[in-house]
Amino acid sequence: MCADIVKELEPLFNPKSVAHIGATNNRNKWGFSTITSLINTFQGPIYPVNTHENDIQGLKVYRKVTDIAEPVDLAVFTIPAERVAEAMEDCVAKAVKSAVVISAGFAETGPEGKKLQDEVLGIARKGNIRFIGPNCMGYWSASSNLGAFMMPLLVRDGPLAFVSQGGNVGAAVVVAGYERGVGFHRYVSCGCAADIAIEDYIEYFGRDPGVKVIMTYIEGLDDGKRFMEIVKEVTLKKPVIVLKPGKTEAAAKAIKSHSGAMAGSDQIYDAAFKKMGATRVENPEEMLDVAIGFLTQPLPKGRNVAIITPGGSYGVLCAEACEEDHLNVIKLPDKTIQALDKMFPPRWSHGNPVDPAGDRNFIAYLTAPEALLALKEVDSLIFMGFGGFTLFGNLLMQQRSKVEQQQMKPEEITLRDAALRAIIPILENIRSGDVDKTEAGIRTLIQMLGMVLGIKNEMEIEDLAIMTIAARHSGKMDDILIDDLMELASGKALANGSGRSRVEIINDLISRLLRALVSQWIESWGKPVITTTFTEEQVKLIGDHYDYTSGKRAARVLVKLTEYYSYLHNIGAV
Amino acid sequence: MCADIVKELEPLFNPKSVAHIGATNNRNKWGFSTITSLINTFQGPIYPVNTHENDIQGLKVYRKVTDIAEPVDLAVFTIPAERVAEAMEDCVAKAVKSAVVISAGFAETGPEGKKLQDEVLGIARKGNIRFIGPNCMGYWSASSNLGAFMMPLLVRDGPLAFVSQGGNVGAAVVVAGYERGVGFHRYVSCGCAADIAIEDYIEYFGRDPGVKVIMTYIEGLDDGKRFMEIVKEVTLKKPVIVLKPGKTEAAAKAIKSHSGAMAGSDQIYDAAFKKMGATRVENPEEMLDVAIGFLTQPLPKGRNVAIITPGGSYGVLCAEACEEDHLNVIKLPDKTIQALDKMFPPRWSHGNPVDPAGDRNFIAYLTAPEALLALKEVDSLIFMGFGGFTLFGNLLMQQRSKVEQQQMKPEEITLRDAALRAIIPILENIRSGDVDKTEAGIRTLIQMLGMVLGIKNEMEIEDLAIMTIAARHSGKMDDILIDDLMELASGKALANGSGRSRVEIINDLISRLLRALVSQWIESWGKPVITTTFTEEQVKLIGDHYDYTSGKRAARVLVKLTEYYSYLHNIGAV
Repeated sequence: MCADIVKELEPLFNPKSVAHIGATNNRNKWGFSTITSLINTFQGPIYPVNTHENDIQGLKVYRKVTDIAEPVDLAVFTIPAERVAEAMEDCVAKAVKSAVVISAGFAETGPEGKKLQDEVLGIARKGNIRFIGPNCMGYWSASSNLGAFMMPLLVRDGPLAFVSQGGNVGAAVVVAGYERGVGFHRYVSCGCAADIAIEDYIEYFGRDPGVKVIMTYIEGLDDGKRFMEIVKEVTLKKPVIVLKPGKTEAAAKAIKSHSGAMAGSDQIYDAAFKKMGATRVENPEEMLDVAIGFLTQPLPKGRNVAIITPGGSYGVLCAEACEEDHLNVIKLPDKTIQALDKMFPPRWSHGNPVDPAGDRNFIAYLTAPEALLALKEVDSLIFMGFGGFTLFGNLLMQQRSKVEQQQMKPEEITLRDAALRAIIPILENIRSGDVDKTEAGIRTLIQMLGMVLGIKNEMEIEDLAIMTIAARHSGKMDDILIDDLMELASGKALANGSGRSRVEIINDLISRLLRALVSQWIESWGKPVITTTFTEEQVKLIGDHYDYTSGKRAARVLVKLTEYYSYLHNIGAV
Repeated sequence: MCADIVKELEPLFNPKSVAHIGATNNRNKWGFSTITSLINTFQGPIYPVNTHENDIQGLKVYRKVTDIAEPVDLAVFTIPAERVAEAMEDCVAKAVKSAVVISAGFAETGPEGKKLQDEVLGIARKGNIRFIGPNCMGYWSASSNLGAFMMPLLVRDGPLAFVSQGGNVGAAVVVAGYERGVGFHRYVSCGCAADIAIEDYIEYFGRDPGVKVIMTYIEGLDDGKRFMEIVKEVTLKKPVIVLKPGKTEAAAKAIKSHSGAMAGSDQIYDAAFKKMGATRVENPEEMLDVAIGFLTQPLPKGRNVAIITPGGSYGVLCAEACEEDHLNVIKLPDKTIQALDKMFPPRWSHGNPVDPAGDRNFIAYLTAPEALLALKEVDSLIFMGFGGFTLFGNLLMQQRSKVEQQQMKPEEITLRDAALRAIIPILENIRSGDVDKTEAGIRTLIQMLGMVLGIKNEMEIEDLAIMTIAARHSGKMDDILIDDLMELASGKALANGSGRSRVEIINDLISRLLRALVSQWIESWGKPVITTTFTEEQVKLIGDHYDYTSGKRAARVLVKLTEYYSYLHNIGAV
């Protein structure tokens, strides 16, 4: 453990100025894309260093770092390996505080390269320059909007931090994270990690309040003992997710030629990760799945799972996935079966997974989870087909457009619209504060949705309203809901005047209501409620809500969360 | 085997008219969404049948099927189970030719329901009515644009056919297929399969020239022996992909309560699938992955794989995935290492996966695959990071916008644009037919791309041109390429006048060029070339090209294709 790691890496992650040694206008070189990344992100002074070019994208070029008059916090290297040592000497002379050596041709190439690397390391140590690399793709730091990276990726802040021994895998995970709507506070492609080791970054991320979940891709470790000691400390505070290939001979060979690392015995690694409380994942997609799970869910206290599914075959595949991952798809107690008997038609599955077998009573589907979460023996709930609810909005749209096309049944449209318009005075009261905004708003929303979805049992609508009021109280449901209701009820949306179709608004309302419900369940019971989409699709993290794209992926996340809790529990940390 | 299956199921898949028994205006009932689906798809006459409603979405309503004067080819049932037998008697009296019984409450509920089901079956048999279900979600048939389905899905034709014992899993796969850009010629949710068994559909699909790949989701089989006999015949002609859960106790229980089926011994099923040449997959996503693999790739003749990757860590994960799936990541012969030594810088991986280690020589990256495919010992190639090439277009765009923002280096823009404009006369010659359109067009394209990408070695550009000419000859590269080049070269796109940015056009050109190259490799060598994206994203099937979203998924597809070839080879069919 290095007591000063936060202080020592400060100039690296929050530099005030950057020199780029090897910046160039030559499009065939990484020095071109790296300086472009820098210019496109960093707002402080950037000093290109190049021995013969004079102007790089409008910036004045210096021949050597020592020619720069102003102080330099960070030096970025993209020059050939054999010139790095000399340039590092210049950095020492200039009192540069930190560096990233993107240049390849060091330890990964063999003993000669290792010697060169040691030389560079010695020079940097002499000047107290902590550096990333060599043989890496660069890094970024959201706190200073710095992208010192070989690829044209933007810096988007978020609660994740990632140190990767593979630049491409790292970049792929970061891009996929962006697509899912989650950002990275730090991302480091660490390369040969000559100076700052993977465990140093993890320690630093562990102490960074901007980081909630730490991720790392590892091909091999130089000092496994030190790694274990540090990660063991960090996992007491935050989850550390590890992707470590090398189970197979083909991977071990590829690792040797890629990073020069020894993959080592997979069993030994696996046992060590377990001992230090690290969460091991199988692939980049799962890495993000699990990271988002840590961000959005409480830790489950055991392996017992309840599943509710809109379709039997869905439930079958999810139950299979859970049991394959050693989660227990528990037998429901008789009292729960009896309670569900009252909600669902006789054909329901009478077991776990709970499958209403095509029943269209949405109130029951949204009430049943409470009966499952209330059970002591249930540690978490998988709530399937979440995104599928909006299909019903689409169904209405499809039918509506058909009706309009054929100019049929206008009186039916009018009837429903009139019902919606009747809500306007209530909504106005809510808005003006004449009635309790919180409760009445939710009640009205639910009643309206009930009408839209064709639910006729007033009592059930009332139950759902009561359930969601708590969600509103917890601040999970925002005022825009009321505005949308006003818009919808006023009939404006009918004419598409607002740019959003009525069905889009309804779908949006349904989605937000469902998300609020799930948030409320999670808060009330302190148990994970993992939702899944109807089918594989691009999903965005919205607030603290995320839908997984299959029962299998939901199960994988749950088992990883369970294992982390179990580790913390066994060492007495929770 | 039923000799007349094609004739017998003809009225089901190509009906001229449809009666819907249980159509309704009640939004709480599946009869509402089913009639809506029918109206939104089928162009022939639709006759709603309902005992008390008079008008359903503008259609005249009949009290009984026998009240309809015109002939009825297909009857759709959404009435309660206890009324199905009587209505089926009416269908027999009316000489209805086929039916789909969506209604639940039959064999899946126990012995009483089974009795009712047998009664309905007896009545239908008496009238020679072949029927789907009961207890299903319906079906569709693209040849008659018929969507007799419980969910609001559109019918989109394509080369796949799917029979599913789970309506939700089926619909999810179909929706995901649409998202990927592949359609379904037939989709059947078969439910209890009282009359037409799963193997009957498979036999029918096997004889349907519109179907290239058959898919099925099975929970349990009534007559495993018959299934095996029929599928064994079909797999001689077309791949049959099977998703069959039931390895775990939890899944077996869920299956029992869902379809009433006995999951059976998984080992016995697995051995049987192997014996009949069926391709077993693990989940719905893999089902589509493998189906698209069958549609777009030749069958690999063995398990030997070469991998080319733009990044070492990518290659590591892919090699690991291949070996875990028992593919051989072969050792490259010395002569190939020597050939690649000439293409790549000394730091390249010197092995399989082939990793140029950050080299930016795209020509080499696109030439190396030939050296790998030419090897007798290579059965297939995984070409990684395919989609990532367009990142470089984005890099140019990013840099360009920055340049424009800061009003820097206009002379550089002019220089490159002038170079592009110099191509205009050549392009005009090509268009007018004065020079050989095929060869010169490709050469020009490559030269231009070379300039855009900053490739300066004319010889390498020429090599790439020669390689792609064959692609053009094979008709894989369309005339639009030339048009796009004209547009790009004329400078119009620079001003964004065409609505597409210059970079969008370049990215599109690069993508099309790469796809053409891959098509040419597949045709020349008769070996699969599986491409992967840079990261997990929504991918579309374009023509006969599809990118998989990870090395793992690519490996899974390859191993399934290999197993099918191996089966066919062992029985002497190839």
